Amino acid sequence: MKIEGQHYRTIWSEGETVLVIDQTKLPHQFAVVAWRNVEDAAQGIRSMVVRGAPLIGAAAGYGMALAMKADPSDESLAQAYDLLVQSRPTAVNLRWALDRMSGHLKSLPPEERTAAAYREALSIADEDAENCSLLGEHGLFLLRELWNHLGQQRPLQVLTHCNAGWLAAVDWGTALAPVYKAFDAGIPIHVWVDETRPRNQGASLTAWELAHHGVSHTLIADNTGGHLMQHGMVDLCIVGSDRTTAAGDVCNKIGTYLKALAARDNGVPFYVALPFSTIDWRIQDGLKEIPIEERSSDEVTHITGRTAGGEVVTVTIAPPGSQAANFAFDVTPARYVTGLITERGVCAASAEGLTRLRNRSLQP
Amino acid sequence: MKIEGQHYRTIWSEGETVLVIDQTKLPHQFAVVAWRNVEDAAQGIRSMVVRGAPLIGAAAGYGMALAMKADPSDESLAQAYDLLVQSRPTAVNLRWALDRMSGHLKSLPPEERTAAAYREALSIADEDAENCSLLGEHGLFLLRELWNHLGQQRPLQVLTHCNAGWLAAVDWGTALAPVYKAFDAGIPIHVWVDETRPRNQGASLTAWELAHHGVSHTLIADNTGGHLMQHGMVDLCIVGSDRTTAAGDVCNKIGTYLKALAARDNGVPFYVALPFSTIDWRIQDGLKEIPIEERSSDEVTHITGRTAGGEVVTVTIAPPGSQAANFAFDVTPARYVTGLITERGVCAASAEGLTRLRNRSLQP
Repeated sequence: MKIEGQHYRTIWSEGETVLVIDQTKLPHQFAVVAWRNVEDAAQGIRSMVVRGAPLIGAAAGYGMALAMKADPSDESLAQAYDLLVQSRPTAVNLRWALDRMSGHLKSLPPEERTAAAYREALSIADEDAENCSLLGEHGLFLLRELWNHLGQQRPLQVLTHCNAGWLAAVDWGTALAPVYKAFDAGIPIHVWVDETRPRNQGASLTAWELAHHGVSHTLIADNTGGHLMQHGMVDLCIVGSDRTTAAGDVCNKIGTYLKALAARDNGVPFYVALPFSTIDWRIQDGLKEIPIEERSSDEVTHITGRTAGGEVVTVTIAPPGSQAANFAFDVTPARYVTGLITERGVCAASAEGLTRLRNRSLQP
Repeated sequence: MKIEGQHYRTIWSEGETVLVIDQTKLPHQFAVVAWRNVEDAAQGIRSMVVRGAPLIGAAAGYGMALAMKADPSDESLAQAYDLLVQSRPTAVNLRWALDRMSGHLKSLPPEERTAAAYREALSIADEDAENCSLLGEHGLFLLRELWNHLGQQRPLQVLTHCNAGWLAAVDWGTALAPVYKAFDAGIPIHVWVDETRPRNQGASLTAWELAHHGVSHTLIADNTGGHLMQHGMVDLCIVGSDRTTAAGDVCNKIGTYLKALAARDNGVPFYVALPFSTIDWRIQDGLKEIPIEERSSDEVTHITGRTAGGEVVTVTIAPPGSQAANFAFDVTPARYVTGLITERGVCAASAEGLTRLRNRSLQP
């Protein structure tokens, strides 16, 4: 996608250095940071310099390449795997990408591993960008149908939670890929952007992305979506997924479940957009089987923003002595999900739906 | 309730000056401000120096007294009514208190109105404090039953949204009155405090209140409650109400509806605590008949907090050029409300339930 007319991905390499957009600085500052070793990559994933399930996968791939550059031995490979796999606990793409890198690299002699690792990391990134674009086309079909069904009388109203835009992937994004495709196809569209406390990825990333692409949007407190749906102001919800079970349960940013409940109560379609790499085929019951990351309570009690003078400062909103809890994700049971939008097409959020798509060949 | 060992109400008079705790300064600063005329009162209600349905009623009463002090004529009475009734559109207590003040004062000759107005405003405040205390006793009964039912094995887990504590009323509060009564009665209790974006009344007022009373609590992002309820970490929800219809629909802070949906989905009791003064007997359908206040988008895009150095500053969290919407309330349909806790007892959220209590005499 483009920033000020220039095409960017969220992660790329120049020589053997890995470059990423520092998402902790947005929307106040656009900065690109360099990763020179695997520790940089692990720390960048942990501190959410990069975040979003698809991007975490690509970042883990490049992290492995940085490890091979320093030391292509079996021991280094195993250490890099262990370091990176622990950097975030919930997104399954991390493990998926590491398994793919590790399986490929182990089959090669050490002297070939560095170059092969950079090639494989680039393949993961390229495939993610391609998959998100395909996913966007499938979503576009849905959005066009809905817009026709509504009589093309007014802009289509989409609600999204957190950031599942191109900043969450390598390019295009997941939940926002259909939105960008619809916008580019001339379908008038407006996005309600959940702020997404406590880290405000909606306010800082989704609003920023949409503004740069010229997509009409309105920032709202996370509390607002139910009211909007009660009053017919949302035509559909689309969110991303950090991990999807084989039965279609969706683990995504905390608060997603509440929006799915409101969508169900008001007859609003609730779609989840995800590349197949976020599916964890080993598990069925998301509520019981997905570990939910607990992050620092400082993310709840402290907020970073920009003063009128342009200075970026961090303030606390809580009284001294009040503790806070910070669960990063929740699980939306499959029964509340209208459909899953993937690079292989759209399916029901169920074992049958996913299995049918899994057996379908990927046809661009 | 007490602050640093000293008993306070949220509003009181000294001579003919009205004094209120400035709630826009909390939790960073405890400040009492003086209102010397009706414009001060209207501006204080509008800018949320005082807020919370019961307190707004008491504040409107004192605003009318300030107007009478300046000019006790019929014209002044009518003007003060019009000014104050427009200061907030959703809470029905405002109109209730103004009708009561106006009805009483009109029956008196102008020269008696000033003293009578201060007496009547104090009566409204006294009755509110008494009603909230009674309501708390009825809620305590519920909490004790639940705690016994759960085997007294662990602290009772209550989730609340926004601030319906003593800062929202004259004393005791509505949703928190049962919590304070339970705490004082030795029932171990812990409160999950919804931050309550965009104005953060949970973080800035509820957490502050509970901390000062010594009640165990944890601040959470508004997105979190669904996850907690899915995992059995909430025994019941109690919220307040800005306006309740004759059929039991509850208009309360934006986001309340989402928590009610999650409570229903997980079999968690969802109670609303309210004095009878917040019931609007004229209306049935809250979704269709209650005007929802839209406030400045700055409340979404800007946040005020305290720097590490102790300075209170306002920052923006949104990218330049992203607009925001700010609906202040939503409506929870009666079917999602387990029960209403009032000064006259607990009833079903229905026309039948409310009518039964309405016909019951108030017995302390």
